[in-house]
Amino acid sequence: MDRLSLFVLACLCLASPAAASVRRQGPPSPLRFGRSGEFKILQVADMHYANGESTPCEDVLPDQFRGCSDLNTSAFLRRMIRAERPDLVVFTGDNIFGSDSTNSTRSLESAFAPVIEAGLPWAAVLGNHDQEGTLSREGVMRHVAGMRGTLSRVNPEGVEIDGYGNYHVEVQGAVGSVVSNKSVVNLYFLDSGDYTTVAGVGVYGWIKASQQVWFKQTSERLQREYMKEPEPQNEPAPGLVYFHIPLPEFASFDSSNYTGVGMDDGVGSASVNSGFFTAMLEAGDVKGAFVGHDHINDYCGELTGINLCYAGGFGYHAYGKAGWPRRARVVSASLEKAVDGGWGGVESIKTWKRLDDEELSTIDVQVIWTKG
Amino acid sequence: MDRLSLFVLACLCLASPAAASVRRQGPPSPLRFGRSGEFKILQVADMHYANGESTPCEDVLPDQFRGCSDLNTSAFLRRMIRAERPDLVVFTGDNIFGSDSTNSTRSLESAFAPVIEAGLPWAAVLGNHDQEGTLSREGVMRHVAGMRGTLSRVNPEGVEIDGYGNYHVEVQGAVGSVVSNKSVVNLYFLDSGDYTTVAGVGVYGWIKASQQVWFKQTSERLQREYMKEPEPQNEPAPGLVYFHIPLPEFASFDSSNYTGVGMDDGVGSASVNSGFFTAMLEAGDVKGAFVGHDHINDYCGELTGINLCYAGGFGYHAYGKAGWPRRARVVSASLEKAVDGGWGGVESIKTWKRLDDEELSTIDVQVIWTKG
Repeated sequence: MDRLSLFVLACLCLASPAAASVRRQGPPSPLRFGRSGEFKILQVADMHYANGESTPCEDVLPDQFRGCSDLNTSAFLRRMIRAERPDLVVFTGDNIFGSDSTNSTRSLESAFAPVIEAGLPWAAVLGNHDQEGTLSREGVMRHVAGMRGTLSRVNPEGVEIDGYGNYHVEVQGAVGSVVSNKSVVNLYFLDSGDYTTVAGVGVYGWIKASQQVWFKQTSERLQREYMKEPEPQNEPAPGLVYFHIPLPEFASFDSSNYTGVGMDDGVGSASVNSGFFTAMLEAGDVKGAFVGHDHINDYCGELTGINLCYAGGFGYHAYGKAGWPRRARVVSASLEKAVDGGWGGVESIKTWKRLDDEELSTIDVQVIWTKG
Repeated sequence: MDRLSLFVLACLCLASPAAASVRRQGPPSPLRFGRSGEFKILQVADMHYANGESTPCEDVLPDQFRGCSDLNTSAFLRRMIRAERPDLVVFTGDNIFGSDSTNSTRSLESAFAPVIEAGLPWAAVLGNHDQEGTLSREGVMRHVAGMRGTLSRVNPEGVEIDGYGNYHVEVQGAVGSVVSNKSVVNLYFLDSGDYTTVAGVGVYGWIKASQQVWFKQTSERLQREYMKEPEPQNEPAPGLVYFHIPLPEFASFDSSNYTGVGMDDGVGSASVNSGFFTAMLEAGDVKGAFVGHDHINDYCGELTGINLCYAGGFGYHAYGKAGWPRRARVVSASLEKAVDGGWGGVESIKTWKRLDDEELSTIDVQVIWTKG
């Protein structure tokens, strides 16, 4: 079989993962746990895609530099999809590096091509660099929301909200289980902004109050639905939140209380606190918040019940650290066994990272939440 | 003249201060700068009023204790009103100490009696102790909003908002000036909550996202009106914000960069940051935020253009420091002279405190904002 045929076959196989049903076309429909009782999310942070083969790598070892380009980013994404067979791929911003891109639309198409070819459902939020090319922030998000296979949306309808790309995605329980018609994992996606709009105040943007109101109302509704008849559940379904820029609370840790590394990148949060960590505490269902932005931080630390996790940098046309492999984070939710032997709600959530080395090494496996 | 007649006369005089027109009855109408070009706000923090004469003082010198009660709080308020002749009195919460009050309604009536007798307009917000008696938090605010002479309101109409006592008050320019039909000082009042509702997270409450959205929308509208035709102004009118519990940002100072004292009281903010300081920065018009809660802090410090100020404790049935006089904060806004010799918008804002000593000593006079 030639390489192209092999590739097409691989794509077809990946398009039907055993673990979960996959939405490929038509109007948005919920994701769902499959028979394996596991739902796996691959997080890809900071692809920084520009023009493809002509866009060189940054911060790789001297012997890796020759021929290294955006295509290495795509190759890593394809390898990750093959290795993990995720049920959903989440791109947490700086998907493209606008200022080095000749054509933002083309960069977006190339950046997300591997996940589309694989037929996997995917979701994306904006970083601070996505809008620096030929499309505005709204333009990038509108284009992304119209791409094949994506669950991304520009914004909730009928809600006055800041930013572009605030939406939520539900993951329903396994077919035949008592929670088959309920969302057992709730995914929240937010636009953490790009740059400050307040003179004299810091560099980066932040999640605004309007977004927090929408987030809290959405969480409240989902919790109500999960805990009411029929089949009322005892505690809220776990929520996971994805956005680009870390919150100031990411700086609450040191190597004694996180897993992973917080090398010499600092925490590139906004210089002010806009309260989103507090909003997550108020909501009460969030178990983890997952960001990118600081490429050589990849740690995960728990603060008052919420795990704050970096993915580590994924893209080759992005600053990094030569010899420190590009990486991605995986989050996996596992269902509990119900009394009748079928599946129930989510029992635990774990996370790990994979490195873009020869073995796609798995590191830092940790359980971040267990029910009850 | 007997003492009662003298008192009635004093009240009548105070009811018509020269500096500003005073609204006494009927539907809410804007406050307005008078011919003096000055508008003065007296802030009264933490009266902690309970049952009057039978409620003893706390933390006074041994020789002050005998016969000392809530009536000393009322006497101090009457002296302050006579001395400063304010155009508005603002009560920043813990107006009554609910848990020691036999009847919250009666405590409220007694606590606010001096300002009502004086015929002055006044506004109040809730602290964390107001609802600990016979009225709920909503009940206290509803009662307050119905009292004579108050500009207090329970909440804006048609807005879903957390808490009770979120409203704004406008102060219009001097009659005959180009800004006579515009609000030249905007006062924002917010409910900073009472206690945390999140298990394992701190003690005190915080200003929620819904309140911040309302605040920012109100500020945006007021700025638009001030800067549009007719008589469009070049920069927003200054805003002043009043609430009870300090923000975490109040802990940004030390004696090298504040005026006043931050004795050994710590900063009793919520243990999480809900983002209201950031919301004020975003709004862009706020020059000062004025709180109570920590009775033996009375400092004022500036952080990225916004002054964060304590008033210092006012009430005698409240913890304090024996020998450290109860006190109050005054804020005074002064109009600029227009080209035609009349009044324009606000040129500067200054603040000082008054102590409940023999001379009602004025201390810590400072200019906190000058136009341009």
